[in-house]
Amino acid sequence: MIVILKQNTSENEINNLTNSLEAKGVEVSKVKGKDLIILGLVGDTSKIDHSQIEANRNVERVMHVQEPFKKANKMFHPEPSIIDVNGQKIGGNKIALIAGPCSVENEKQIIGIAESVKGLGAGFLRGGAFKPRTSPYSFQGLAYEGLELLKIAREKTGLPIVTEIMSPYDVEKFNEEVDIIQVGARNMQNFDLLKELGKANRPILLKRGLSSNIEELLMSAEYIMAGGNENVILCERGIRTFETFTRNTLDLSIVPAIKKLSHLPIIIDPSHAAGKWWMVEPLSKAAIAVGADGLIIEVHNDPANALCDGQQSIKPDVYGKLLEELRPIAKAVGREL
Amino acid sequence: MIVILKQNTSENEINNLTNSLEAKGVEVSKVKGKDLIILGLVGDTSKIDHSQIEANRNVERVMHVQEPFKKANKMFHPEPSIIDVNGQKIGGNKIALIAGPCSVENEKQIIGIAESVKGLGAGFLRGGAFKPRTSPYSFQGLAYEGLELLKIAREKTGLPIVTEIMSPYDVEKFNEEVDIIQVGARNMQNFDLLKELGKANRPILLKRGLSSNIEELLMSAEYIMAGGNENVILCERGIRTFETFTRNTLDLSIVPAIKKLSHLPIIIDPSHAAGKWWMVEPLSKAAIAVGADGLIIEVHNDPANALCDGQQSIKPDVYGKLLEELRPIAKAVGREL
Amino acid sequence: MIVILKQNTSENEINNLTNSLEAKGVEVSKVKGKDLIILGLVGDTSKIDHSQIEANRNVERVMHVQEPFKKANKMFHPEPSIIDVNGQKIGGNKIALIAGPCSVENEKQIIGIAESVKGLGAGFLRGGAFKPRTSPYSFQGLAYEGLELLKIAREKTGLPIVTEIMSPYDVEKFNEEVDIIQVGARNMQNFDLLKELGKANRPILLKRGLSSNIEELLMSAEYIMAGGNENVILCERGIRTFETFTRNTLDLSIVPAIKKLSHLPIIIDPSHAAGKWWMVEPLSKAAIAVGADGLIIEVHNDPANALCDGQQSIKPDVYGKLLEELRPIAKAVGREL
Amino acid sequence: MIVILKQNTSENEINNLTNSLEAKGVEVSKVKGKDLIILGLVGDTSKIDHSQIEANRNVERVMHVQEPFKKANKMFHPEPSIIDVNGQKIGGNKIALIAGPCSVENEKQIIGIAESVKGLGAGFLRGGAFKPRTSPYSFQGLAYEGLELLKIAREKTGLPIVTEIMSPYDVEKFNEEVDIIQVGARNMQNFDLLKELGKANRPILLKRGLSSNIEELLMSAEYIMAGGNENVILCERGIRTFETFTRNTLDLSIVPAIKKLSHLPIIIDPSHAAGKWWMVEPLSKAAIAVGADGLIIEVHNDPANALCDGQQSIKPDVYGKLLEELRPIAKAVGREL
Repeated sequence: MIVILKQNTSENEINNLTNSLEAKGVEVSKVKGKDLIILGLVGDTSKIDHSQIEANRNVERVMHVQEPFKKANKMFHPEPSIIDVNGQKIGGNKIALIAGPCSVENEKQIIGIAESVKGLGAGFLRGGAFKPRTSPYSFQGLAYEGLELLKIAREKTGLPIVTEIMSPYDVEKFNEEVDIIQVGARNMQNFDLLKELGKANRPILLKRGLSSNIEELLMSAEYIMAGGNENVILCERGIRTFETFTRNTLDLSIVPAIKKLSHLPIIIDPSHAAGKWWMVEPLSKAAIAVGADGLIIEVHNDPANALCDGQQSIKPDVYGKLLEELRPIAKAVGREL
Repeated sequence: MIVILKQNTSENEINNLTNSLEAKGVEVSKVKGKDLIILGLVGDTSKIDHSQIEANRNVERVMHVQEPFKKANKMFHPEPSIIDVNGQKIGGNKIALIAGPCSVENEKQIIGIAESVKGLGAGFLRGGAFKPRTSPYSFQGLAYEGLELLKIAREKTGLPIVTEIMSPYDVEKFNEEVDIIQVGARNMQNFDLLKELGKANRPILLKRGLSSNIEELLMSAEYIMAGGNENVILCERGIRTFETFTRNTLDLSIVPAIKKLSHLPIIIDPSHAAGKWWMVEPLSKAAIAVGADGLIIEVHNDPANALCDGQQSIKPDVYGKLLEELRPIAKAVGREL
Repeated sequence: MIVILKQNTSENEINNLTNSLEAKGVEVSKVKGKDLIILGLVGDTSKIDHSQIEANRNVERVMHVQEPFKKANKMFHPEPSIIDVNGQKIGGNKIALIAGPCSVENEKQIIGIAESVKGLGAGFLRGGAFKPRTSPYSFQGLAYEGLELLKIAREKTGLPIVTEIMSPYDVEKFNEEVDIIQVGARNMQNFDLLKELGKANRPILLKRGLSSNIEELLMSAEYIMAGGNENVILCERGIRTFETFTRNTLDLSIVPAIKKLSHLPIIIDPSHAAGKWWMVEPLSKAAIAVGADGLIIEVHNDPANALCDGQQSIKPDVYGKLLEELRPIAKAVGREL
Repeated sequence: MIVILKQNTSENEINNLTNSLEAKGVEVSKVKGKDLIILGLVGDTSKIDHSQIEANRNVERVMHVQEPFKKANKMFHPEPSIIDVNGQKIGGNKIALIAGPCSVENEKQIIGIAESVKGLGAGFLRGGAFKPRTSPYSFQGLAYEGLELLKIAREKTGLPIVTEIMSPYDVEKFNEEVDIIQVGARNMQNFDLLKELGKANRPILLKRGLSSNIEELLMSAEYIMAGGNENVILCERGIRTFETFTRNTLDLSIVPAIKKLSHLPIIIDPSHAAGKWWMVEPLSKAAIAVGADGLIIEVHNDPANALCDGQQSIKPDVYGKLLEELRPIAKAVGREL
């Protein structure tokens, strides 16, 4: 950690600050020039609160040098984490394929789609039971009934199920019944929910918030991991920018960034990123090429009548064709589908 | 609502879509030119889901004309809402002054600050008991103990207390014990929490999310109001932009925008917006001049040793001086402090 | 074009507006509901200024339905444009490979790099002679001397040269001596420069501005094309967002968007996007997979001593290895390198 | 300047880097801990290029401590600069009032508006002769004819004229005929234009780019000042964010930021920021309250028929009323109108 002091800070004030920092267990080195006073903090700075030092009126700026996340940090865990989901792996050589509708609508729909995507090569079934909708007047999902339908689809197809949790009340139930618990973009910094999920043992699919930077995403993973659950899968689903042609801007640079900073796997959601079904194909190809560990894609048998997000869902036949086209790209980057 | 169809949509397909829309209870008018087909939907379009129509592959775009919020809409409630908090009003002629520390640290601290700010003219005491922190290793607040200390401070000073809720578990307790329940920026779209708060009857201070637009803020207010609790106070605390000199970018345009769109009061939090204590004063003046209904400001007796956000807190004497300087501006815009 | 009127607009005022619009040569259809008045404008709306209609105090909003660009529009030119540069094509089946240093430093450097990248498979040489630098105190490029050195490198290698223009003064000279004239991101809306380039006949490489949306990029292309020069190559080089880990956020969704909206080719600059040399490889792969027509990459023989942007330049051997790895991805998407 | 090295950098490599830095004339101090190596650079670092050091593969990050601007820096010029325009001052106690139409349309219009705004208290006349328009098909301004009309209006009213320059070709003419030369947001980083303006002696009104941060604005001012023209007036006119309700987001925090970092005056353009005429009044009040040195406002006698930007123009009577309302706010912050 580096502390820049104001030019006119007195020796006395420098000493006071140095002492208070050393009392927190770090070593402090001073660099002093004509118009520059720097304190370099060496040692375990993880317990030192950035904003507390900045509150000192002699401090110009505080910069951290080491990443503030630990359990998610590649430095302390150089090998990539491979998450095991009922025997299937996420983060290894094989690319994880998660597919299914935005929301579970009825038994016939979810079983039909599950069978379709399984037949085409998907390894996991996604489907929303609890839906975070901007408007209270929009369809909010089938809730617990949707969960039951997902379980029936799992029984029929053997596909592990991925579904979004919205309330800490449901952690226990989800931990028993769901194979991968999804935290949506809007809840990425719902810290109470993250803490509860830290006590679960199911893998958590953590989506990046619409305006969260890479470090914040890793800090939210850290919340879950610090609680004891180290099975975190990160997911990029587009960030909010000034561009309005796409619903969000898919930030594929996050994949090499995460590979550099962390050992956690990262998958891409091209459906939510673009908000346009015809962009799913090219963005999926780019996601595999950039090194993503998986794809979560909205597939619906009848997008025009889907209860939500039909405009970004593709039909099973389009999904099947896409997987075929992805195979050589996966191979080109040393992975398999 | 307006639906733009693709140029080459057949008469048959136009009729199918028209029929399916009319089945939802709206009247559909068609405008057709050489390279333009528009359907104008007239009637109650509130139950029609935007994204469902967009899923139709003949649809180019859907645009809503009327705002999707109702209870928060000025059109149906032209008079400004004035929220009553134990006899004090927010949203009327008098500007609400909420002040206090980022987090409650101990009894002496919170009572000391409460007495100071009351003496200087503040009408409400703020203080965090549950703190949403980016890092799991940062101080997380005193939790229920902090709440007890706030209650003691209220008893001593008579100031109503404002504090942040982070979990739906706590709604019942907060509804009994807290005067204004704050929803933080990160939870603006924590819809489960909003729904629970819709069943409470305490006023809710709803902060704008870091990347939420004005319409989304009003839709989150709508969640609470649709549940039955119409006492919502909006709060702007800065949005996330590319600018890094300030922690966030305070968007003061939201004040006239809300006054045009809604009847709900809106207050400004200059402390979190700038993240710099020396910006609190000019931004507070701008907030009053632009027409805000109140200010929520971080005041701490010893910012350099505050357990959080010291760099953006001002001391009581600075706060007192600020209030003096705000008075003539309030008067200039027809308000009083 | 669609005009939404305020609910309480009188019949008289609607008629006045309708007449004034019809006087501009369009047909106006009215849709009127309980709380909705829409005017649908059919015909040639390209000469009608959006903001002029919005200035009418009865107008709530104006929305355009058709894209405001014409010559760049795919609707009127369904086949992709293939730009010919001294016999090499950009926009066809073969992916264009442009490589070279950020800035031309001396004869030995530029010839050495030109020979290297040519040997590895690049088809075009890039190199900055005029450099747009944020600081007036940074190296500003060798200017005309740099241009001469580029010409020597072209003579030695046969590679067409791509270099950035910064002033309308230089259009004549560049048009004579340069093979592809680059307009940098900061000048994307330097309309006077664009107009001058419309009179040139060399292909223009137009980079997207840091905060320009897709429509604005196409409107800037339209400026050049409206002047008579239809040889425009678009280039995405990252947009400015809140993320600070990367220098900019590479928006790969622009590739399918442009392919849908326009016939112009689009290439990707992964070097400027990320600002980190180790991201060039994965982002280049993603660019090819998403369907880009080319790559412009910074290659330097000695990045650590480069006079600018060394942190985002790769060495020739890394570039060679990258091209090998790109080949199977290009093949997978039906292209060749 | 601070250089963070990678943990595993060898002593030998540290020495090499240190030597190469010292060769540039700075003193280098090393701080070394278990997993942290920092070099603190003391002395004149202004000639050292950030990106050149980052290109060294052992370097993790480079952070500058001192602002990269000098002539614009408050540190070396603690007193605020007061710009003299034909005897009127900008930056002093009196708030500068610049008003006029978006574009000059004809003699009657510009003289009429000039007389109106002068009568109401404006000190400067603005009016566009050369207009930067997103579309090549929109009205581009009357060009030199517009300039002549502005000069007639100046002669009639005595008001100094402010108008936008778009091409370096026009610097000489503008320097002779215009009182304040405006650089628009899109040209803030048109460095060739800035360099030419550095040779002029008229005051330059430099508008912040839509996605330019505060430091970049000051660096653009530095370009002009480094050329010899120190008469720069900064102008905030809204930045581009994800919010779409307003055309841009007015960032009023820039005013206290500039007051802290620089001695240059800063004025606010509420018309372009909001893009809505009814927001001009509250945003102007906020601008004065936050400490701006002036206001540039679009005033048109007939907004509904203005050739551009009518939706954000106010009528003279509204402008007059606004000035009356601004007076007590100006007084409250120790200024006069």
